[in-house]
Amino acid sequence: MADMLVLTEADLRKVVALDAEAVDCVEDAFRALATRRVAMPPVLRLDIPEHRGEVDVKTAYVPGLDGFAIKISPGFFDNPLLGLPSLNGLMVLLSARTGLVEALLLDNGYLTEVRTAAAGAVAARHLARADARVATVFGAGAQARLQLKALTLVRPIGEARLWARDAGKGAAASAALTRELGFPVRFVADAREAASGADVIVTTTPAAEPVLQAEWIAPGQHITAMGSDAGHKNEIDPALFRKACYFADCLPQTRLLGELHHAVAAGTLPPGTDLAELGDVVAQPRSRRDDEITLCDLTGTGVQDTAIAHLAFTRARAVGAGVRFDTGGARA
Amino acid sequence: MADMLVLTEADLRKVVALDAEAVDCVEDAFRALATRRVAMPPVLRLDIPEHRGEVDVKTAYVPGLDGFAIKISPGFFDNPLLGLPSLNGLMVLLSARTGLVEALLLDNGYLTEVRTAAAGAVAARHLARADARVATVFGAGAQARLQLKALTLVRPIGEARLWARDAGKGAAASAALTRELGFPVRFVADAREAASGADVIVTTTPAAEPVLQAEWIAPGQHITAMGSDAGHKNEIDPALFRKACYFADCLPQTRLLGELHHAVAAGTLPPGTDLAELGDVVAQPRSRRDDEITLCDLTGTGVQDTAIAHLAFTRARAVGAGVRFDTGGARA
Repeated sequence: MADMLVLTEADLRKVVALDAEAVDCVEDAFRALATRRVAMPPVLRLDIPEHRGEVDVKTAYVPGLDGFAIKISPGFFDNPLLGLPSLNGLMVLLSARTGLVEALLLDNGYLTEVRTAAAGAVAARHLARADARVATVFGAGAQARLQLKALTLVRPIGEARLWARDAGKGAAASAALTRELGFPVRFVADAREAASGADVIVTTTPAAEPVLQAEWIAPGQHITAMGSDAGHKNEIDPALFRKACYFADCLPQTRLLGELHHAVAAGTLPPGTDLAELGDVVAQPRSRRDDEITLCDLTGTGVQDTAIAHLAFTRARAVGAGVRFDTGGARA
Repeated sequence: MADMLVLTEADLRKVVALDAEAVDCVEDAFRALATRRVAMPPVLRLDIPEHRGEVDVKTAYVPGLDGFAIKISPGFFDNPLLGLPSLNGLMVLLSARTGLVEALLLDNGYLTEVRTAAAGAVAARHLARADARVATVFGAGAQARLQLKALTLVRPIGEARLWARDAGKGAAASAALTRELGFPVRFVADAREAASGADVIVTTTPAAEPVLQAEWIAPGQHITAMGSDAGHKNEIDPALFRKACYFADCLPQTRLLGELHHAVAAGTLPPGTDLAELGDVVAQPRSRRDDEITLCDLTGTGVQDTAIAHLAFTRARAVGAGVRFDTGGARA
């Protein structure tokens, strides 16, 4: 009889962390996206406006990986009124050879948090100056924390600033990060001041109007924008496209979500500009000019989900984590 | 702590059958599709050609139902070489209020079989002559059997014919159906002869070239075509659109899959024809002219999945079926 491995969030937190291996795993996923015949259909999106709910379903098949994930990500924004988190979710890992269910990863969005932050590390590793020491994050949520931690895995960050609309949350997050990371993380109430002089800036907000202005950005800075995952969201001033070298996690997605389509709509991206994806620079590293401005637009891709689910499943099996559940189906 | 109900195929077979209540449940789903603000995004489709695999993900939110299903349907056509069925699948039932997982329905495609056959019954109930007595099915697979059984739930079927390309399988299926249904089901090797004189014809094949020719069809006959669920499949001679009144399960789907787009491509559907969906006639029953030819094009919809998953979950809870699994997440 067939069985599947069921892993809870607690199991998954024990086997997967935001560490060098998670970053490498997500880097491999971007490399595959650029070099292999990855199948990654457009995101399935369901909206339930009555309950301020939305669900995204993402998937990707990566040749060479024996499993692929289908990730279900609900966001229900009235949940906090019920004492529940807004974001939840799970991944179903299927065999790429038979389509049978291999594992159910009840991660409540944890693996998404890790693979999203890991993509920020991949972007910084390939696009930010090698000597990047000062980082700035926009936002005070879970991704603000994780993106800053991710940067420390790939660049010699020794100082950070944090800007957030809510000064109370921003100050609290800065204090917690200072304790966690062992270097000063300072809350800066003025966004321009926060951005000024940073080697790497990561925006992690749900903003629908730009929070980072083009005129603030100086030569040599790298920006990763990861907050926008829907058409109406927009963190980056479209004018930045006039002076930055742009990289998408997935161009068909950033043409609809993310930052790219705002620049296209604003006319600040010169027509006919040849655009690259993060996977392209992973597959074929580029040399960075010191005075270059680089911008990486992350909307979150199914290939990252498949990669992190595969890593979690492999590690869980190795240590015997989780519960085996007899599905009653046939098994070869 | 949160928990979800896990139901295996064996559990689900005990609580859901192809019966009058399943037909009503699917009928309600089509009614909702026509009359309520149902959210039903396009099917997510992933192809894995290396292993002759494909995965469809379907979902729909129906206002008034407190849960919605996300259905994962893999088809891996080399599986029989490994001793496994080609088709598998599961449904995840989420709360429409919070997005939390309510249940995991490990049905291996069983609920899909039931809801698909139930749609055939809904089509016959609203489109076939009330006195329909003779039925013909094209195909010898599981849906051939279930579609014929479904017809007996809504029409006074007393005689049936079965046509299949493979005479051995066709004869065996006919003999089994005769025993199961209690009236004669005769294998007919000639497709035209099988169709001639039938009140209802249901095609259930994976044909890529029409198996039912327009010139065989006489006034008063009803045809349900349910075999095509992909752009290259085609069971019905496009010329039939010149003389039949057409109904889709979901027009946006049959414009891409099903039979409609073949007729559009062939030019046999007069431009500007006003097209209806099955839900329209469920919501507002129409009177049928005795000499009318009707054609219903079923590609399978997420709203059926949500309906049958909701029924299964409701019944399973009522009888205490399945296993509760602590997901470790928060619960209001």
